[in-house]
Amino acid sequence: MPKTINVGLVGCRFMGKAHSNAYRQVGRFFDLPVQVVMKALCDIDEPAVKAAVGKLGWESYETDWRKLVRRPDIDVVDICTPNFTHATIAIGAAKAGKHVYCEKPLATSVAEAKRMLKAVQDAGVVHMISQNYRTAPAVALAKQLIEKGLLGKIYHWRAVYLQDWIVDPNFPLVWRLRKELAGSGAHGDLNAHIIDLARFLVGEISEVCGMMETFIKKRPLPEAEGGLTGKAGQKMGEVTVDDCALFLARFDNGAVGTFESTRFATGRKNYNSFEINGSDGSLAFNFERMNELEFYSARDPADQQGFRTILATDASHPYFGVWWPGGHIIGYEHTFTHTVYNLISAIAKNKPASPSFAEGVRNQAVLEAVEKSARTGKWVKVQA
Amino acid sequence: MPKTINVGLVGCRFMGKAHSNAYRQVGRFFDLPVQVVMKALCDIDEPAVKAAVGKLGWESYETDWRKLVRRPDIDVVDICTPNFTHATIAIGAAKAGKHVYCEKPLATSVAEAKRMLKAVQDAGVVHMISQNYRTAPAVALAKQLIEKGLLGKIYHWRAVYLQDWIVDPNFPLVWRLRKELAGSGAHGDLNAHIIDLARFLVGEISEVCGMMETFIKKRPLPEAEGGLTGKAGQKMGEVTVDDCALFLARFDNGAVGTFESTRFATGRKNYNSFEINGSDGSLAFNFERMNELEFYSARDPADQQGFRTILATDASHPYFGVWWPGGHIIGYEHTFTHTVYNLISAIAKNKPASPSFAEGVRNQAVLEAVEKSARTGKWVKVQA
Amino acid sequence: MPKTINVGLVGCRFMGKAHSNAYRQVGRFFDLPVQVVMKALCDIDEPAVKAAVGKLGWESYETDWRKLVRRPDIDVVDICTPNFTHATIAIGAAKAGKHVYCEKPLATSVAEAKRMLKAVQDAGVVHMISQNYRTAPAVALAKQLIEKGLLGKIYHWRAVYLQDWIVDPNFPLVWRLRKELAGSGAHGDLNAHIIDLARFLVGEISEVCGMMETFIKKRPLPEAEGGLTGKAGQKMGEVTVDDCALFLARFDNGAVGTFESTRFATGRKNYNSFEINGSDGSLAFNFERMNELEFYSARDPADQQGFRTILATDASHPYFGVWWPGGHIIGYEHTFTHTVYNLISAIAKNKPASPSFAEGVRNQAVLEAVEKSARTGKWVKVQA
Amino acid sequence: MPKTINVGLVGCRFMGKAHSNAYRQVGRFFDLPVQVVMKALCDIDEPAVKAAVGKLGWESYETDWRKLVRRPDIDVVDICTPNFTHATIAIGAAKAGKHVYCEKPLATSVAEAKRMLKAVQDAGVVHMISQNYRTAPAVALAKQLIEKGLLGKIYHWRAVYLQDWIVDPNFPLVWRLRKELAGSGAHGDLNAHIIDLARFLVGEISEVCGMMETFIKKRPLPEAEGGLTGKAGQKMGEVTVDDCALFLARFDNGAVGTFESTRFATGRKNYNSFEINGSDGSLAFNFERMNELEFYSARDPADQQGFRTILATDASHPYFGVWWPGGHIIGYEHTFTHTVYNLISAIAKNKPASPSFAEGVRNQAVLEAVEKSARTGKWVKVQA
Repeated sequence: MPKTINVGLVGCRFMGKAHSNAYRQVGRFFDLPVQVVMKALCDIDEPAVKAAVGKLGWESYETDWRKLVRRPDIDVVDICTPNFTHATIAIGAAKAGKHVYCEKPLATSVAEAKRMLKAVQDAGVVHMISQNYRTAPAVALAKQLIEKGLLGKIYHWRAVYLQDWIVDPNFPLVWRLRKELAGSGAHGDLNAHIIDLARFLVGEISEVCGMMETFIKKRPLPEAEGGLTGKAGQKMGEVTVDDCALFLARFDNGAVGTFESTRFATGRKNYNSFEINGSDGSLAFNFERMNELEFYSARDPADQQGFRTILATDASHPYFGVWWPGGHIIGYEHTFTHTVYNLISAIAKNKPASPSFAEGVRNQAVLEAVEKSARTGKWVKVQA
Repeated sequence: MPKTINVGLVGCRFMGKAHSNAYRQVGRFFDLPVQVVMKALCDIDEPAVKAAVGKLGWESYETDWRKLVRRPDIDVVDICTPNFTHATIAIGAAKAGKHVYCEKPLATSVAEAKRMLKAVQDAGVVHMISQNYRTAPAVALAKQLIEKGLLGKIYHWRAVYLQDWIVDPNFPLVWRLRKELAGSGAHGDLNAHIIDLARFLVGEISEVCGMMETFIKKRPLPEAEGGLTGKAGQKMGEVTVDDCALFLARFDNGAVGTFESTRFATGRKNYNSFEINGSDGSLAFNFERMNELEFYSARDPADQQGFRTILATDASHPYFGVWWPGGHIIGYEHTFTHTVYNLISAIAKNKPASPSFAEGVRNQAVLEAVEKSARTGKWVKVQA
Repeated sequence: MPKTINVGLVGCRFMGKAHSNAYRQVGRFFDLPVQVVMKALCDIDEPAVKAAVGKLGWESYETDWRKLVRRPDIDVVDICTPNFTHATIAIGAAKAGKHVYCEKPLATSVAEAKRMLKAVQDAGVVHMISQNYRTAPAVALAKQLIEKGLLGKIYHWRAVYLQDWIVDPNFPLVWRLRKELAGSGAHGDLNAHIIDLARFLVGEISEVCGMMETFIKKRPLPEAEGGLTGKAGQKMGEVTVDDCALFLARFDNGAVGTFESTRFATGRKNYNSFEINGSDGSLAFNFERMNELEFYSARDPADQQGFRTILATDASHPYFGVWWPGGHIIGYEHTFTHTVYNLISAIAKNKPASPSFAEGVRNQAVLEAVEKSARTGKWVKVQA
Repeated sequence: MPKTINVGLVGCRFMGKAHSNAYRQVGRFFDLPVQVVMKALCDIDEPAVKAAVGKLGWESYETDWRKLVRRPDIDVVDICTPNFTHATIAIGAAKAGKHVYCEKPLATSVAEAKRMLKAVQDAGVVHMISQNYRTAPAVALAKQLIEKGLLGKIYHWRAVYLQDWIVDPNFPLVWRLRKELAGSGAHGDLNAHIIDLARFLVGEISEVCGMMETFIKKRPLPEAEGGLTGKAGQKMGEVTVDDCALFLARFDNGAVGTFESTRFATGRKNYNSFEINGSDGSLAFNFERMNELEFYSARDPADQQGFRTILATDASHPYFGVWWPGGHIIGYEHTFTHTVYNLISAIAKNKPASPSFAEGVRNQAVLEAVEKSARTGKWVKVQA
């Protein structure tokens, strides 16, 4: 086993900040078999990366990911860049013999995702996608309760991921609202999460039927592109991604599901929520109260049945024990720390990491099937 | 204006009991322009109707609805029988010149519903469907807030109606699980409610795409039909209706919606719940807490925005003022009393009642479109 | 066993309306061994009682309670008048050989309450106080769970009864705010309820230490007494009762408790809420969600513990079975129907009713001890 | 302004871990005017401090606080040791010219607290107590809403701090349960928090009346002291602190309050909760959902009033903006980071820090008055 694992991270914005925090914190709380070294931060925006490198705790910086992946002092490359760049960087990193850790969605198409998977398999490196919500203690507990059979046979999955940050029609046409840069809108951003959770908790999805909608078709261009903040005379550009994406699904095991992601749910900030109904019990979760898991057991005495609010902050709950005493809740960023803990543990032991790129391919297949269904107005089989 | 309105009610089971309570109670709390007289209860099951007539407060009983609708002392016929009998009775009552009040779903097909509508229109009688959830004060308040424009432009409707009373595979094959008697399962029973609420609150639905599923294909026959309670050797029969029915929808006004009804949501007893997101605010409701309406206003100061739990028990709220002081909540049965209040008021003033059979036809058109979509696997336009 | 029980009710305001509803409804849902006859309504305000007698469903009316209690066709006298009149009417009714049912608080002093108890005992009639919250299914379920030992040894009782109807300083000086008419303010009105629930669920209270406060010392006189609605020049009168009353308590069994009642909790309408903590579990209840009981069991597996929201609408729950299917909630008024069911059942079987006047004496003793403590600033032993 | 502030921290257990995290993280998210240097960790338990120094991110360690406070490279001494040692260390640090930051409760008596205050004032150093809950964004928002006058005149404060970690009678007699080491039980540990919040949000407390109780009088000695884990024959020791402490209070501004802290509330893990009722609105908070503030405004239109759940994760909310996008919640540890941000900012600008030792003295005065009241059974004036 190595004594240190040297990390190089590409992308210094929102996800870069979250991942950096995870690397800084993971060894402070978890007992790791190796030491994590935050070797280099990389971003094409040199002023940004220069400002971030020290603030976020990195030793050095790069502005070209190609240079980063060639550095002999880098063991793992962490990809936090816009989706359309994932494949190139991941394949480049794999070819350079680096372990690869990539933000979701893995790619912008199944074909691309499969090339990425092939690259990491050919290189024999550890590969993992970042699906941080799997490691919220309440979600990991949900997984445990299901695996113990406490829900019996699962009949229903019901998930929404609701946000509201672009409800204002004057919110500008940022890159996330342009298909050529973002791939899709709410779909790839938010459905990518709840599809992964559905597969994690319920099982593989066999077919889907969905729709997408763009409520606000034109938006002011950002100032940098000649947009004006005032309402009169501002230059407008076309929104080319979905504002919301909804679909119905059938699972291999006979369960049925609903999925909805939107950026137009006024008042819902990061409302990533699911409910699962089985023959013997049900579970419900909402990220805005991420420390809580609702659990109903039909095995309780008839007069004592009810949804229990389990505060997933007990030492007996997944991941929580290293943090604080029960009832002292944790937050969003901790999910990344848990995820990085899994990554580092796998690399240290040279074992497969989970969720791997193969899982990323499967998630991508569901995303793509929904897009096809939205275009054709028909049910589409998921083919991974 | 008449001094009294004489009611004849057909069907003495669950809905008959609820409607009877409404007639008994409405004049005790509301100021009615006329007196309601509970003239006759009718059911083909004579022992049952004999036992119920006094218990539920009726003056007399009949066992043949044809006789009931011919009675000159009956002003309005209330239909609480299984769905497949609605049309015959309603048309018969209309032809006899009676006002007609009918439980939902109005019919088992759009064609049938239209015949019913034509019959009441031809007869010039008052006609109304029972959509009791419209008159929960919290729901009626939702309607008012929307009409005041507090939600702005509506983008999303999201509704589920969840129950769990047939999760046990040993629950017998009652009539509600047989297509020839019930028409459909969760769809006609539960979706009929949330479709009506969607139309009431958001507007007309233009197209739908749905699916249905029957999780338990065979069930023990009821004892009366030779079924056995023990597990070994019991006679089984085929379930011919849906256990759940889910669909996506587009509204005429550009909003999108999801609908799901199921009898397999372990732990959810009568979880009739919706959320509406508009440009300026959102609303959420769940019948299991029917006295509460959640309201989010994006017009509140930025640092003070949040979903408000409005306890809809204020004198300023619809329907509530006649009951009790604020905070002294009401229940399920009160929604029927409010509905009957609307019915009686309309008849007394000889004005159109709402929701009318025309609304029932539109609800039916959505139900039918979903069924067609579930068969064909495609989007179907709603045609009423 | 008699075939009918004839009721005479004194007082046609809020409580009179609630009790009337209970008599009308009880036989419609419960199977009673006798028929309840709503014989006579009595109130000194003749226009009011004339208007109410038919509306509320009574056969006749009286304006003098003395006449009512002498009527041979009356079996039970129900007292819904202001507190200071309870003793006189109850003792009069008992002497006339009538069963007596009296609203809480039983009296305005322990001495008075004891005279009432002696009178009914001497007369050998059935006697009962109206403590309607005991019969909310969720509360009755709480009692059952405690009796089953599911909470283990009880350590804590924590109750508040919060309202807000007099927060406005321009709210007039109604009779409830005058000591000579009401006895006390929030204390006798609201603490009377939560003291009763504490004794019902936890046990007898041994000593108390409390305080009272009147936040608004002067209020406009009602218009009838020369008060003006405008702010300038309005005649003011002194508020002579408490706006809030709070106390600490020790129970005989070693548990400790807190109690708080107020009419100044802005936003709380009828927030009658308690929490009980025992060695093995906890319970929580809030009347504004009266169909729900929160139950935590420390006997659940460690990773599955949490407060369960039991929707107390199952056929297995106390009182609920006669109403509606699970999840179809009931309201405030139903608690009176349940209470009257208990009353009528006891009278029919000529058995002691519960809670009896002896319980009323004990409640009164706690109320009085708190008042003494508030005056003296010291702990006071409860002496009943 | 200095370029760096060098910190020396005494005590490496629970609070030491929480404070260390705060120092590590504060500069990663907040823009500080100086750099924080984690110079030295100190603990009398050398194996423990040796293990912690690197794990928690400190440059060096000491085992004698006297040595630490004399080190010229230390600017501020942070005290996270048991309560009975606070005074000695704080006074020692002040005399050595160090800024002093001390965990709550400041001392074990008012007299001691006053000596500490005099020492830091004489030394002219910055002094601050750690009252981390003040800096939960939802609590800081509560403060802002009150200061804006949105609650009007405050009538009620109602707070509980509920835990359950010693409900098991076999939980051993740890130092926190011995008066000579801990000073008091739930009182100094938990009431110290809610007293501080009450003073922060409502104002100074003028008089109190309280009680304390120890439910389990004897507990097994810890193994180190000869205790046995088995039930038979284990050596028992006396519990000399309170298991719970409850009191009533009057504030200078006329409001009244209730306070309750206990370690015997089964199912409540870190339930630090308060409600404030004013003439124009109310607030409610519960730490187990620390990102949420409930706010009721009586200034909303009558039909739209309700408790709003404000998710205090907006950029407009106190402290939150540096963390994550709205809806991405934070946890317990972040309150310490915010507190340390305030400390460091004050030291950097050489301005008074808040809450200062003077606030600590006032908190102590309330604690002490309650203890006296519990002994005497009478109301006690708070004298600071």
